[in-house]
Amino acid sequence: GDAKAGRAKAVSCQACHGLDGLSKLPDAPNLAGQVEPYLVKALTEFRNGTRKNEVMSVAAQELTDSDIANLAAYYSGIQIDVVPPG
Amino acid sequence: GDAKAGRAKAVSCQACHGLDGLSKLPDAPNLAGQVEPYLVKALTEFRNGTRKNEVMSVAAQELTDSDIANLAAYYSGIQIDVVPPG
Repeated sequence: GDAKAGRAKAVSCQACHGLDGLSKLPDAPNLAGQVEPYLVKALTEFRNGTRKNEVMSVAAQELTDSDIANLAAYYSGIQIDVVPPG
Repeated sequence: GDAKAGRAKAVSCQACHGLDGLSKLPDAPNLAGQVEPYLVKALTEFRNGTRKNEVMSVAAQELTDSDIANLAAYYSGIQIDVVPPG
């Protein structure tokens, strides 16, 4: 996927997931630094109906395979640092 | 949820998601710092069959409501810092 193209496409995602990949709503997950193949799978499953969500089942309909690959590249590419639990 | 009890229960999750909440497998998402209500919803949906995954549909069967709340408290409580994309 092309992260730069993904960032452009992510304007459609930002109200819930942020351009920074941090959730803006209690039901929306953070996407920053998320595992790339997991993101591809999630979006593909929302698009084909295997996974259902009021918002995402609709939003995913308009995504091409390239869009999905690009969005996954963008959000997975945001660097996160984890503070190890004590 | 009780994060300390969640940490104890998370030994069942760590092979795929890590005790640190960082994925150990391409199909497993990071859980570190994930939104708490989202985690509760995900585990509840895997348990009741609304959401399906080869591994999680089985793993969630043995979780009580308390287990779910505690695991969500534990993983959501791991601090993450995001480096804003350029």
